[in-house]
Amino acid sequence: MAENYEVEQPSQTHQTLQEVSRALENGMFVHVRRMLEDMEPEDIAHLLEASPPKSRLVLWQLTDPEEQGEILEELSEDVKDGIMVRMQPEQLAAATEGMDTDDVAYLLRSLPDNVSQDVLSQMDAQDRARVEQALAYPEETAGGMMNTDVVTIRSDVTVDVVLRYLRMKGKLPEATDALYVVDENSRLIGELAITALLTSQPDTEVLEVMEDVDDAIPVDMSDSDVASLFERRNWVSAPVVDKEYHLVGRITIDDVVDIIREDAEHSMMSMAGLDDEEDTFAPVLKSARSRSIWLGANVLAALAAASVSNLFENTLDQMAAIAVLMTIVPSMGGVAGNQTVALVIRGLAVGHIGDSNTRWLLNKEALVGLLNGVVWACIIGGVVVLWKGNLMLGGIIAAAMLTNLVVAGVAGVTVPILLKKMKVDPALAGGMALTTITDMVGLSVFLGLATLFLV
Amino acid sequence: MAENYEVEQPSQTHQTLQEVSRALENGMFVHVRRMLEDMEPEDIAHLLEASPPKSRLVLWQLTDPEEQGEILEELSEDVKDGIMVRMQPEQLAAATEGMDTDDVAYLLRSLPDNVSQDVLSQMDAQDRARVEQALAYPEETAGGMMNTDVVTIRSDVTVDVVLRYLRMKGKLPEATDALYVVDENSRLIGELAITALLTSQPDTEVLEVMEDVDDAIPVDMSDSDVASLFERRNWVSAPVVDKEYHLVGRITIDDVVDIIREDAEHSMMSMAGLDDEEDTFAPVLKSARSRSIWLGANVLAALAAASVSNLFENTLDQMAAIAVLMTIVPSMGGVAGNQTVALVIRGLAVGHIGDSNTRWLLNKEALVGLLNGVVWACIIGGVVVLWKGNLMLGGIIAAAMLTNLVVAGVAGVTVPILLKKMKVDPALAGGMALTTITDMVGLSVFLGLATLFLV
Repeated sequence: MAENYEVEQPSQTHQTLQEVSRALENGMFVHVRRMLEDMEPEDIAHLLEASPPKSRLVLWQLTDPEEQGEILEELSEDVKDGIMVRMQPEQLAAATEGMDTDDVAYLLRSLPDNVSQDVLSQMDAQDRARVEQALAYPEETAGGMMNTDVVTIRSDVTVDVVLRYLRMKGKLPEATDALYVVDENSRLIGELAITALLTSQPDTEVLEVMEDVDDAIPVDMSDSDVASLFERRNWVSAPVVDKEYHLVGRITIDDVVDIIREDAEHSMMSMAGLDDEEDTFAPVLKSARSRSIWLGANVLAALAAASVSNLFENTLDQMAAIAVLMTIVPSMGGVAGNQTVALVIRGLAVGHIGDSNTRWLLNKEALVGLLNGVVWACIIGGVVVLWKGNLMLGGIIAAAMLTNLVVAGVAGVTVPILLKKMKVDPALAGGMALTTITDMVGLSVFLGLATLFLV
Repeated sequence: MAENYEVEQPSQTHQTLQEVSRALENGMFVHVRRMLEDMEPEDIAHLLEASPPKSRLVLWQLTDPEEQGEILEELSEDVKDGIMVRMQPEQLAAATEGMDTDDVAYLLRSLPDNVSQDVLSQMDAQDRARVEQALAYPEETAGGMMNTDVVTIRSDVTVDVVLRYLRMKGKLPEATDALYVVDENSRLIGELAITALLTSQPDTEVLEVMEDVDDAIPVDMSDSDVASLFERRNWVSAPVVDKEYHLVGRITIDDVVDIIREDAEHSMMSMAGLDDEEDTFAPVLKSARSRSIWLGANVLAALAAASVSNLFENTLDQMAAIAVLMTIVPSMGGVAGNQTVALVIRGLAVGHIGDSNTRWLLNKEALVGLLNGVVWACIIGGVVVLWKGNLMLGGIIAAAMLTNLVVAGVAGVTVPILLKKMKVDPALAGGMALTTITDMVGLSVFLGLATLFLV
């Protein structure tokens, strides 16, 4: 059975990748096509994402047109868009055949309006109607994520009738773990878990074994809220309802997993000043342009810090040791403050931080800053006294360090929370705003004290 | 039906939280207990996580002992440990009743050995045997995540027999989406999707409708690899096998979702120098100590930068404008380099970057650095000429900026990849190593050129 024992380990991807890129370089397209035929759509998507743009397009030409839809839906936005702009509407319409409604809608959203109209017009009438209905909901809501392909039953039939009905249907939507029970007005009144269906006697009425659904998802709920509900409730799928509790669709865990990963990655990428959809292998010009904005913001921050130093040019002129040491305090403040910012951003993202506990958190982080401030003030003060042989200089840097770490703790809590209240993404702007504050406070206090006591 | 329309929105958590903390302050424990009775275990867990340590313990005393096991398994590690150390072995044993094997094992792992032995001895023999078996597998592997409670069937029976068997059993494990087909030696030979079971005719043989399982999960696969497989294959559950392909357990999506979120959060928290399990509301002393390590590393980095400036003390002594401007180039290099580091860390984490494309990425990031270097060198050079009226100084800062942004691009790719080869977590050490490089290169080039051409 050893030959059955084949799970693709991450390192295998890169072996495949090297084999494919070598084959591409040598023009062995037939060989590559054969390799791609043996791969699952999601693995081909992974291969495309890990390839530089040029090989990506060649690889795409070699994939099976019938699998292209499934491959596209597994790609990240940037990579997907890069491929789709080069496809003809007929090719796109063909690729969407057999795909879930929500996935087709997801693909069409990234196309220009006239192109997506073109693609829609190539689809058959029933599919088109479904997709158009899905497109009517905003993208980042439950309505935009849901699938309209649901199995509904009535409450007054027996388990046996349901089983016959399902056998007649012959196919169930993916990840079906429950059938939805609706009344005569299509209102959701309960759900029948598949496991309950399987373990109940054939003559039981659905009404007896169904469960109430008191937490169906409102169609206008945001995708991040949907994701955190799924995560907390350990759901596999959940019904979506409109304001009158009519069943309008169903969301499955596989779409939610993508949102969970995206939301969690968003914070990390934003904190470094990157768009979370940024393609690792994007063309140079595109990358340079998108990062430039962040560098531009930092130029202003760096110039602001420099103009603080400039206020003390006279002091700097008189004692070079001050210039040598002046970067230490801002650097420590930046690191300490960013620890707090990261903690607060995660707390805000998972919903742990709100009005009820902000004050507690503020006190805590100020105290953490004070404690660490005392420790590092003593250490750095001591190092400076030994290094520069100037007791006053050691005292000044220690005082500046202590002040800056307390400021870092306080600003680390308040800056992200204020940004969120102002509807600015704290992950994006928090780190830089914080660093600007700690740089300016650190430099002013250190240079200010030095001016007062040393020159 | 409007009263049915109750989904807990994130903002509601904080209303509940405020109500609870007000009730706690006023000593209205009975009221709080009643509120907790109406809440789901996962929502109580969320409430505990969002509470300061003191209220946490009071709240815990007020929860229903029968729900404590379920609440514990929803808590993050730090918070869970804080509560469990205060519980008696009998209470713990009672709390684990009715829980999944893998979840009990997860709880017991965080206890000291003698306490977990105590708890085990209080459990009934069958449960104890199952949990001990689960504990035998290392924590961060498929074996440590899996549940041993699986439903197996033989391939030579009909669908009708399977249905009768399931009705007799009466209950199926949570999130069951497939039954596993094994041979006489308990080797996994296929799986029967529940949806196939429901839509097949009663007289069909299992052999005809089952599917091959060519990608069962090896019991020693790491939890991150399991998570990325689930994510790519859109699985709800998957069988786990040993080296001889014996079925040993089953992993479900709810456990995987936690790993996906943890892995994604890990990068963000580590990059800011935080432990990813750090509790937002941890006690001050504990927080201060855990963050201190990172500040200590930064002290060394800041002192290294200061000793570079120190080499040029003579230059700084002669021209204060140089000291004023010297922080700009390191700051820009740090930001640009950290953009690249974040991109590479994500690429390494999702498996997009490997030997096959490192060189391509290195070239790309060096070029991005060059392009942005030219842009910002011109801008900053221009600003300095206008500000300080010194053409040479503008040229020097422009040259230093250009050099440092190219260095940032190259180091941003190589540092995380080298760290990973050295088995050091790139998310943890990458940012600081990068900043140290860009600080030292930025200062040396700027101050070095200034020494050569200005004094």
